[in-house]
Amino acid sequence: MAKRPRLGEFELIARHFAPLASGQTGALGLLDDAALLAPPPGETLVLTADTIVGGVHFRLDDPPALVARKLLRVNLSDLAAMAARPIAYLLALSLAVDCDDDWVEAFAAGLAADQAEFGIQLLGGDTTATPGPPSATITAIGALPNGTELRRSGARPGDVVHVSGTLGDAALGLMALDGGLRELDEDAAARLIERYRLPRPRIALGQALRGIATAAADVSDGLVADLGHICAASGVAARVDHARLPLDPAARLAVARHGAAASAILSGGDDYELVFTAPPEASAAVTDAAARSDVAVTEIGRIEDGGGVKVIAEDGREIALTLTGYRHF
Amino acid sequence: MAKRPRLGEFELIARHFAPLASGQTGALGLLDDAALLAPPPGETLVLTADTIVGGVHFRLDDPPALVARKLLRVNLSDLAAMAARPIAYLLALSLAVDCDDDWVEAFAAGLAADQAEFGIQLLGGDTTATPGPPSATITAIGALPNGTELRRSGARPGDVVHVSGTLGDAALGLMALDGGLRELDEDAAARLIERYRLPRPRIALGQALRGIATAAADVSDGLVADLGHICAASGVAARVDHARLPLDPAARLAVARHGAAASAILSGGDDYELVFTAPPEASAAVTDAAARSDVAVTEIGRIEDGGGVKVIAEDGREIALTLTGYRHF
Repeated sequence: MAKRPRLGEFELIARHFAPLASGQTGALGLLDDAALLAPPPGETLVLTADTIVGGVHFRLDDPPALVARKLLRVNLSDLAAMAARPIAYLLALSLAVDCDDDWVEAFAAGLAADQAEFGIQLLGGDTTATPGPPSATITAIGALPNGTELRRSGARPGDVVHVSGTLGDAALGLMALDGGLRELDEDAAARLIERYRLPRPRIALGQALRGIATAAADVSDGLVADLGHICAASGVAARVDHARLPLDPAARLAVARHGAAASAILSGGDDYELVFTAPPEASAAVTDAAARSDVAVTEIGRIEDGGGVKVIAEDGREIALTLTGYRHF
Repeated sequence: MAKRPRLGEFELIARHFAPLASGQTGALGLLDDAALLAPPPGETLVLTADTIVGGVHFRLDDPPALVARKLLRVNLSDLAAMAARPIAYLLALSLAVDCDDDWVEAFAAGLAADQAEFGIQLLGGDTTATPGPPSATITAIGALPNGTELRRSGARPGDVVHVSGTLGDAALGLMALDGGLRELDEDAAARLIERYRLPRPRIALGQALRGIATAAADVSDGLVADLGHICAASGVAARVDHARLPLDPAARLAVARHGAAASAILSGGDDYELVFTAPPEASAAVTDAAARSDVAVTEIGRIEDGGGVKVIAEDGREIALTLTGYRHF
């Protein structure tokens, strides 16, 4: 079947991207040199930028709509970790030679779906061509009442370590996509793959934890790495009970049947859950915040004096961590 | 000579990029999931994003410091066109396999030089690897008092069309870099190449034109294309006198000696001058704004009823415009 050739830059923007900006008056229809954003009085803006590169962060044959949605959600997850409410985003898209108009249309449709889901709009950006693989950068913008942000640096000895959702699913999903984990039935594999392809940024939970959590990060590099970032920023240590780590039934099956899957739980990236700390007396408030946000939250350990992350097995011995994170670099 | 291998992502950020963020408390040392920005009360933020790709927007053997500075300046030029004061920027850098630590160090040094020149700091970003050519996206953030932005849509019949600086230099510089324009002496060629490599965003002029100009754009796609954007957004036509277009002596020489150079004046991109409109009675105020901003401004034509851009030769005939802009797409 003949491919639909790609439109020129201005036609591309007019057809596929201007509709994504129609709800943001400050986007000026994507027709001006820059966009305008007037934050609500008494609020601070929260900004983050993430890039995905074809062949590195996504597969070249991944559905473009899912690629777009994952990129957007990865950015929204950073906003969630700071307790921000997402407002808008800028998109810089570099199209490879073989990205035809169908590819761009599907990519934009993915963004449209997530704009509706998260109540945000496109504010501006850039579209260009690349001789390399397709890549895209999103700069996401959120807002929060002045002084209510969650940082990585507030964890204190005695705090409880909590994590949302389940761990390791995305890394296991990637293993399944790569043809591994044949021990899993189709449904379980599909669920893990979905978790890899379409993370759920914990936006409601992040905001619900304002004034409750002492430190927070999203699990993008793996639990040990991201909790390690909290420890480094806060000048504390963390002690995690391996038996308490929350696993999806599919992940539990994968770990039981496939030895290589175990490290995904501690070190697999891309889960985009929130790992956070709170004083023990705030545990009821955490439970309430989790219930209001419709996401499970599990106590997995404690903050202590010292530095680094220790994971303790059921027999009380420390688990050796050879791989402390998941890096695309 | 052996190349210095590239550092890991976290070391790279700590060594080369965290120092660029040290003046911005909201950057949180680049250690958190996102950055904070509290705009001054009564001000609107102005945001723009631009990407450059190696082999498309810059040459792979260009000095990395100049690549970085050009990317930053291209973004600042968009802020200038809106009359914004630059505040900060986010950087998403995709490093090719052969970008070693020296390359990154030089790239960061270029940013440091321009941060000092423009009084801005790094606010956040992302660093990743790519199997393709190196590329980078900057999201620049400026601010202005609410309601003082310059837009493309305000030009009215009777307005005078002005342009800052000189036209065509960057496109001619690129021709010289490509081995063309051998008719030029070395100094003249070097000056044009410098204009291509290191544009000067007209930030002071943009702000000085608040309340004076009726519409503005930066000349990134070429005079005819960018003035055409103003006409389209404003629903008007523009009539430009070819004889009044401001040329650098080196460009004048190139046009006189090299036929192919003529189109660079009208359609060459990358000059990053400001083209803007203002009522005739504001001409003294424009002159004053130009003087305060230390940049020449030239009246080049008029806004009329209708649509599109007409360029009129000395003999009164319209010049046929076959190439209406310069696109990297």
